[in-house]
Amino acid sequence: MIAEAIGMPPRSLLDVPQPYLLFLGDISEAAYAKTAFGLRDWAPERCVGEFACGQGRLSTGLPYLTPAEAHARGARAMVIGVANAGGAILESWHAALIEALAAGLDIVSGMHVPLERSPALRDAARRYGRHLIDVRRPPPDIPTATGRKRTGKRLLTVGTDCALGKKYTALAITREFASRGVDVDFRATGQTGILIAGSGIPMDAVVADFESGAAEMLSPDAAADHWDVIEGQGSLFHPAFSSVSLGLLHGSQPDVIVVCHDPQRRTILGLPGFPLPSVEETMEMTLALGRRTNPGVRCAGVSLNTSHLDEGAATRFLAEESARLRLPVADPMRRGEPFERLADACLGITTI
Amino acid sequence: MIAEAIGMPPRSLLDVPQPYLLFLGDISEAAYAKTAFGLRDWAPERCVGEFACGQGRLSTGLPYLTPAEAHARGARAMVIGVANAGGAILESWHAALIEALAAGLDIVSGMHVPLERSPALRDAARRYGRHLIDVRRPPPDIPTATGRKRTGKRLLTVGTDCALGKKYTALAITREFASRGVDVDFRATGQTGILIAGSGIPMDAVVADFESGAAEMLSPDAAADHWDVIEGQGSLFHPAFSSVSLGLLHGSQPDVIVVCHDPQRRTILGLPGFPLPSVEETMEMTLALGRRTNPGVRCAGVSLNTSHLDEGAATRFLAEESARLRLPVADPMRRGEPFERLADACLGITTI
Repeated sequence: MIAEAIGMPPRSLLDVPQPYLLFLGDISEAAYAKTAFGLRDWAPERCVGEFACGQGRLSTGLPYLTPAEAHARGARAMVIGVANAGGAILESWHAALIEALAAGLDIVSGMHVPLERSPALRDAARRYGRHLIDVRRPPPDIPTATGRKRTGKRLLTVGTDCALGKKYTALAITREFASRGVDVDFRATGQTGILIAGSGIPMDAVVADFESGAAEMLSPDAAADHWDVIEGQGSLFHPAFSSVSLGLLHGSQPDVIVVCHDPQRRTILGLPGFPLPSVEETMEMTLALGRRTNPGVRCAGVSLNTSHLDEGAATRFLAEESARLRLPVADPMRRGEPFERLADACLGITTI
Repeated sequence: MIAEAIGMPPRSLLDVPQPYLLFLGDISEAAYAKTAFGLRDWAPERCVGEFACGQGRLSTGLPYLTPAEAHARGARAMVIGVANAGGAILESWHAALIEALAAGLDIVSGMHVPLERSPALRDAARRYGRHLIDVRRPPPDIPTATGRKRTGKRLLTVGTDCALGKKYTALAITREFASRGVDVDFRATGQTGILIAGSGIPMDAVVADFESGAAEMLSPDAAADHWDVIEGQGSLFHPAFSSVSLGLLHGSQPDVIVVCHDPQRRTILGLPGFPLPSVEETMEMTLALGRRTNPGVRCAGVSLNTSHLDEGAATRFLAEESARLRLPVADPMRRGEPFERLADACLGITTI
């Protein structure tokens, strides 16, 4: 399982106390509980149960536990597993959050508004000697990058845009590597990934001068046959977030990149004036820039979102794209033979 | 003069109270007073005089004034115009700094260690109702970038490395434009530039997710024939600071770039394992990435540091480089005909 593949996080990363009790708030729609479902799917070993408040009757399928019951079963933190517009902590959640603090759990949030902003939570945390942990806040004292070549192997997922499968692809590759007995760590760069991995750095929240330094810290020296599979962020062609992508690329010094793309998307999410770059452009630009810190960087293949196609059409489409690009092309949501070939190519096993 | 060309800064930039009294500390070597000399040379209208303490007998040539005399002549801030290893405010400076606060001057610093870190200065500022202003601290509430094309024209200096003339080149071009009657603003992105301009954003201190947004804020909509000449930062090929450079490039959406280079430098400053990229590579990569937010971006020419050559050799070298690159090539420290041709090319006047 993925949790076993993650191992001990290096020092100085943002470490999240675990295992978790997943808090579902008073939400009834699954679309607002992506974090909770992501944790259930990708870090089941870190999740002892779920808890809710009010009329919300959503379930992840995990056992319903009070904070006290969860603490008795080993839980050390309650993770806010739901979101709402604005990213705020609702007042209607306060009683439940304070109950968790009283039961000995830290509160962990990936929401925009810091937990500390709420005086009620701040006071309760102090009273019960617990921590309020915002995974959007980077660790202090990140050094500037040195560019020094590190030992071990690294894979970075990159994309033609935000939100089209870079995290999912990295997780699926990590799981596939682990299932083959490869020594592998998933390295998280965004809040959901950090909750799944139990550590990481929220790369978009790092000061630009330290962006590459943070990426260097995230994937430290490792054994020669060890792989870090690093969750990509943004896109080199994104008018707002390219700064994050390039700092992450240079600091990660990947040996292998996998380009993630949604063939249905025509323009950058939220910026309709900007056409999506092609997979080829993205690959070429990433390799050209990536060579600066790793002259041996290569593209192992492409990860496509084919959720708009049925099984047969998806299989044909992936085969066509693979022939056109002369690279393994897979949808990690579908697994099967194309995904195995992509994983082979990442590991340098050429079968195409 | 440059100060007249700078005009009113847009709202939300870091605004520095002025004019300045330049503080030289107890420094005796000019090498440690680059900020003071830079302000004297590039913003004489903002400098009413100089002040020092202890045994330091350095002078910028400006009149020596006590803080009270400077305040009477209109000064509104005392700028720390000297640096020391570590970037700290020395205790031996405290009495002089507090004298300035008592005389009604704010204290402005571009040093690494924040002024607020000193309880003595913090207390004195509160007592006298003055401000401690760190120009390394970006303004709050920077939005993420939108990529929206702004009105007016923009020039960005870019480089093969840090610290090889991007600020100087931008200032020299601003001054040349202004002397030709062009409506121009110098847009500062680093602490010395911000002190010279009286406003700006320290781009290296901005959180990566907002880097391009800060660059958009720095050069707002302007009249169609207005030029913003933007001080570049870092290099797209810098293993540590490329994040700053790409965010600044995308957010600046320049119409024109000028590549700055030091032909004597073989490797990245402080990172001897990294060869300097060539002028051509830098130009091509900047144009390829810059087209994303301004498809019309072009390279007007190259700015070279020729301080290692005598006048005749420099003239020959610039001419050779210009022929080789098929672009105007000048050393802005030398001015003269090559620099005029570079300025012509920036403005779209083709004479080569």
